[in-house]
Amino acid sequence: MLLGRVVGTLVSTNKEPSLEGLKFLVLRQLDIEGGEAAGYRVAADAVGAGLGEVVLYATGSSARQTSVTDKRPCDAVIMAIVDSLAVDGEVTYDKSRDG
Amino acid sequence: MLLGRVVGTLVSTNKEPSLEGLKFLVLRQLDIEGGEAAGYRVAADAVGAGLGEVVLYATGSSARQTSVTDKRPCDAVIMAIVDSLAVDGEVTYDKSRDG
Amino acid sequence: MLLGRVVGTLVSTNKEPSLEGLKFLVLRQLDIEGGEAAGYRVAADAVGAGLGEVVLYATGSSARQTSVTDKRPCDAVIMAIVDSLAVDGEVTYDKSRDG
Amino acid sequence: MLLGRVVGTLVSTNKEPSLEGLKFLVLRQLDIEGGEAAGYRVAADAVGAGLGEVVLYATGSSARQTSVTDKRPCDAVIMAIVDSLAVDGEVTYDKSRDG
Amino acid sequence: MLLGRVVGTLVSTNKEPSLEGLKFLVLRQLDIEGGEAAGYRVAADAVGAGLGEVVLYATGSSARQTSVTDKRPCDAVIMAIVDSLAVDGEVTYDKSRDG
Repeated sequence: MLLGRVVGTLVSTNKEPSLEGLKFLVLRQLDIEGGEAAGYRVAADAVGAGLGEVVLYATGSSARQTSVTDKRPCDAVIMAIVDSLAVDGEVTYDKSRDG
Repeated sequence: MLLGRVVGTLVSTNKEPSLEGLKFLVLRQLDIEGGEAAGYRVAADAVGAGLGEVVLYATGSSARQTSVTDKRPCDAVIMAIVDSLAVDGEVTYDKSRDG
Repeated sequence: MLLGRVVGTLVSTNKEPSLEGLKFLVLRQLDIEGGEAAGYRVAADAVGAGLGEVVLYATGSSARQTSVTDKRPCDAVIMAIVDSLAVDGEVTYDKSRDG
Repeated sequence: MLLGRVVGTLVSTNKEPSLEGLKFLVLRQLDIEGGEAAGYRVAADAVGAGLGEVVLYATGSSARQTSVTDKRPCDAVIMAIVDSLAVDGEVTYDKSRDG
Repeated sequence: MLLGRVVGTLVSTNKEPSLEGLKFLVLRQLDIEGGEAAGYRVAADAVGAGLGEVVLYATGSSARQTSVTDKRPCDAVIMAIVDSLAVDGEVTYDKSRDG
């Protein structure tokens, strides 16, 4: 899994029928020091993530292992909202402090 | 999923029999600020996308989760046409404005 | 899918038994303007592609969705020979012209 | 598989229900000469890895082939703790020496 | 598939139980001109490859399509030992000449 910050939303009316009701969020990729990395991903939301939150997302066939993405043409899913991240003994992200 | 703009078409008469009837479109990858990224993808079209449209595409096994790509040797599918994209509070793409 | 040109062949006698009879071709990756990109792929041939031809190949589990690659440890397959490619309104590749 | 060093932990209370009980570790990617590579991965732990250990991790659908990750939206798993690594005739990592 | 040269071995006693007996080899990635590329992969050995040999390896779910890797958390497998490689009409690798 990789880390991302929810930075946006995407609206689509003309889409594969099975995707009806699925919420797509735009993620900017993050590194583990708390900074932004190059790259983005549009992911389905399985956990009710909100704008600005730091999340964990899974890609590939693993992105279909949730009730909202099962058997759908979706290759990225937000499966966890991050509370805190500790790297090399330091808290590099804490939702209550930085969120 | 990643964003792409439909920039071209591909014709093939000699192909895997199961791909008969599938439409292949050429996508130039886009970033979330509305610009073009390096890289392209040739994707099957599951939603009737047209030249110039901004679309969302899925790759890997997820690309086979549509009725037109099921069980076919196809690793990228256009599964949504994008109406609008909002990033960091700004509308970076709006089909009726930029399309 | 990505585009490649068939530039070579690979011979292997000591291989996974299920791969017996499968033809492996060496592909140089192409961009959509007709030029060569960095990178290569060795792919199984499902369509009878020949040296010099421009082809489309699929990777991952999608590469096993042909009769010759089904259930085999093969992660890339040539599933179409390209006749022509049109990008931004120009024909960037035409087999009868450039092939 | 790729090599990583366990450098951190991640806490998440709001996540996909099936992930309850799964431990997520932060890995910094390593090269085979014993140095750190760019890039990281957050992976589920299937072997009881600890901070500072060098591990092997698998990604994609293969990451779900353990009892703790089966059918879960998880695309990276630590499946082995490395004791030693020998490259070009030299021991580039030995847990009892470098661990 | 991509090309690699077997440059090392990896020892692990604490690993996912299903991996018991599987041999992991360290591969340095090769280009098709016979040179070394950046990057490596640790792969399970399905064909009895030895140090110094040039091999072909498959990744992702395709890496599990051998009897030794079936249903195991393994995302890369050596599925062929390369005898020779011909690119652009030249033999860029021949095991009996270069091996």
